[in-house]
Amino acid sequence: MSGTETSRKRSGEHGTAKLAEFASALSIRDIPEHVVERCVDLFVDWAGSALSGARHRAILAVDDFAKEMGPNHGRSEVLISGRTTSPLFAAMVNAAASHVSEQDDVHNGSVFHPGAVVFPAVLAVAQNIGASGREFLTACVAGYETGIRAGEYLGLPHYKVFHTTGTAGTLAAAAAAGRLLGLSSEQMLNAFGLAGTQAAGVWEFLRDAADSKQLHTGKAAANGLTAASLAARGFTGARRILEGEQGMGAGMSQNCDTTKITAGLGVRWALAETSFKFHASCRHTHPAADALLKIVQEHDLRAEDIEHVTAHVHQAAIDVLGSVVRPATVHQAKFSMPATLGLIAVHRRAGLDEFDTALEDEAVREFMRRVDMVFDPEVEQNYPATWMGKVSVTTKGGTVLTDRIEEPKGDPGNTLTRGEIEKKVRSLAEYGGALDRDGWTRVSRRLWSIASLEEIGSLLR
Amino acid sequence: MSGTETSRKRSGEHGTAKLAEFASALSIRDIPEHVVERCVDLFVDWAGSALSGARHRAILAVDDFAKEMGPNHGRSEVLISGRTTSPLFAAMVNAAASHVSEQDDVHNGSVFHPGAVVFPAVLAVAQNIGASGREFLTACVAGYETGIRAGEYLGLPHYKVFHTTGTAGTLAAAAAAGRLLGLSSEQMLNAFGLAGTQAAGVWEFLRDAADSKQLHTGKAAANGLTAASLAARGFTGARRILEGEQGMGAGMSQNCDTTKITAGLGVRWALAETSFKFHASCRHTHPAADALLKIVQEHDLRAEDIEHVTAHVHQAAIDVLGSVVRPATVHQAKFSMPATLGLIAVHRRAGLDEFDTALEDEAVREFMRRVDMVFDPEVEQNYPATWMGKVSVTTKGGTVLTDRIEEPKGDPGNTLTRGEIEKKVRSLAEYGGALDRDGWTRVSRRLWSIASLEEIGSLLR
Repeated sequence: MSGTETSRKRSGEHGTAKLAEFASALSIRDIPEHVVERCVDLFVDWAGSALSGARHRAILAVDDFAKEMGPNHGRSEVLISGRTTSPLFAAMVNAAASHVSEQDDVHNGSVFHPGAVVFPAVLAVAQNIGASGREFLTACVAGYETGIRAGEYLGLPHYKVFHTTGTAGTLAAAAAAGRLLGLSSEQMLNAFGLAGTQAAGVWEFLRDAADSKQLHTGKAAANGLTAASLAARGFTGARRILEGEQGMGAGMSQNCDTTKITAGLGVRWALAETSFKFHASCRHTHPAADALLKIVQEHDLRAEDIEHVTAHVHQAAIDVLGSVVRPATVHQAKFSMPATLGLIAVHRRAGLDEFDTALEDEAVREFMRRVDMVFDPEVEQNYPATWMGKVSVTTKGGTVLTDRIEEPKGDPGNTLTRGEIEKKVRSLAEYGGALDRDGWTRVSRRLWSIASLEEIGSLLR
Repeated sequence: MSGTETSRKRSGEHGTAKLAEFASALSIRDIPEHVVERCVDLFVDWAGSALSGARHRAILAVDDFAKEMGPNHGRSEVLISGRTTSPLFAAMVNAAASHVSEQDDVHNGSVFHPGAVVFPAVLAVAQNIGASGREFLTACVAGYETGIRAGEYLGLPHYKVFHTTGTAGTLAAAAAAGRLLGLSSEQMLNAFGLAGTQAAGVWEFLRDAADSKQLHTGKAAANGLTAASLAARGFTGARRILEGEQGMGAGMSQNCDTTKITAGLGVRWALAETSFKFHASCRHTHPAADALLKIVQEHDLRAEDIEHVTAHVHQAAIDVLGSVVRPATVHQAKFSMPATLGLIAVHRRAGLDEFDTALEDEAVREFMRRVDMVFDPEVEQNYPATWMGKVSVTTKGGTVLTDRIEEPKGDPGNTLTRGEIEKKVRSLAEYGGALDRDGWTRVSRRLWSIASLEEIGSLLR
């Protein structure tokens, strides 16, 4: 058997190879119209997140680094400033920027934020090579389908220590960039191997309120793009990076289920399962926030009417949020159940502006002492397929009110309308301050029409 | 207590913070003269490895990627071509190039190749900021001491799946680049956090003879430099990246010993424990290669006199080399015990040129079928502190000859002289073909005089 025949035969044999074949061969004609439309929604939603990071200290540091290390011109756009550079640095800065406001999308089953890593990588490559809107969207779908399955394969034992958006996200970005670069299935498999062997990001930063989370998305997008670019140049990677004996599953998780790598490929569209974030906080706070909002609205409770709130949560919420005991920064407040529920109780809203002032707001700070979080077996049992919200409120009068929501606001069964997305994204763009209202109107029109663009040029000019 | 006081107090409390303080405060006056001298030896040895990669397909792919993504001018030199670019890409290409010939240095106790990640990061930054030779060497020592301790902390359970040079190497590069950039101990601790959360690289590529190993060193150097550069800009990282509950030890290893993070800091110089490689193959093959060489020389055996060779090895040798059953490429042959011992039996040498032709050499191929590798409890017990070599040779006449070496050639107790290093490095540079003999003579003089340079400029021009 020749080397090529051996390769072909082997590439049909295991999950990662099938996933690579899928990502490499995906055509816009294979993708149902509602999935393409949802991809446009997610893209617009993502652009808002990317623009919202424009004034954040950590993002400006990444951009300053990119200015020192990268070229100061190119065809790929850094959205927070409109300057151009090479695809690598545009992807890095845009991906870092899109994860800082905690408003980017999330896929429940994989506990993974695909938008923050897929769109920056694809946009940077698409602008560089002059791809069309249809090619752009096809590549994005390849990225979502790949990254979500990688995240589901790595599973919850992985998520206990690793930030899946940093790890599975690298494969997502590689698949997306690789599709746009026209990688063959063999090259795509190499790109996956090279992405997985760069995959990194651990949760330890949470207890220090450090900036690492933005580096995770920035590097996942940049490293995935690197993997695809190297594979296009003949650089090779491991063929079984997910399921091999010395692969990601072996080193970074336990009891991984290989059937998840290819589950429903081409039939089940994981992109359409992706949720929009409504509150500006860690997704693990949203189910309880929605359940509390329901109670305070239905019973017309003010913060001062409430003696105590208990959020009944899944284990991962405790793993991620439990390390934030007393939030010291705005970003850490977004990883605090007490801060999030405090904003809901006081303002009935937990948006960007509310979080910015949460820690100086005496009413919120006072309320935070009245919140606790307990493990709940029923919530755990349904997680991560369903992120159920359950809270008990004890009023000052001693009444105990318990309620639940089955799907947090923004989930596929409780999704945002295009009007709600537009409103959310405009507010994110205004928050970032990189665009005035006229500027936003012009950009918004271009974002929503992405599917019909013959060539993805500048989004901002 | 103010935030700064809290930080100060906390930074004294745990190993990673002490390591960061050490790396940040290290001065050339603290370093014994023999350690500085050995650092020069290791630097010259490394430069040979970097130059040797000049014609390798995988390295040319990385350089081509760097040309697309990075600036095409700057103060940092890409050694394989002499072109200049920004520090990030010079570090990436030089680090990739220095790991491809399998001739770069290794620290036994941590099973880590420090030179391939430390020197590229420091050289790129030093050229960029115009550092002196003394500053350069101080930064290199900081990198070696940090990376080796990180590798020892992560330990052998980590090495079973992870390429420690990719993971601990990221911290090594961060410490080295950070020292040169003058990071405070707080910034250095942030740099460690940011390095550790980018740390990656798994062994899965070995069974496919893929190019990932070069990406591991390239990215470790570049990511460590990124961590230091971001920390210098105020970007923050986890404080307990090694020992934290959601840090590297928790996610990527088992039973890590936190005392190893600071073992003998400032007293024990781990750099001086680093070994030079003599054979052009994976270090796990060297002890057996040296023991076989001893037997064939002492008994004047030719390859055809030998019926069978058994290498008695430690478990990590089986983990790393065991996946290479039938080597298909030159690089894979370097991870093959049969190929390495075949070259020793046939040529009494296993250098770059011998490996290049090993798989087409009928005598070597035939000999390879007569080699096996078995686990040996005594070798295992001494590993990784000592890499003992033990082989049994059965001659065609039926005699069984068994011998051992306590330290492979190049280990600190059996080290290379400066003359041997010069000879090895010249041959590596010639192999790469980037320099003619006159060019090498000029460059060699500059390399050996690194300590006295007022400003590290171009090494090649």
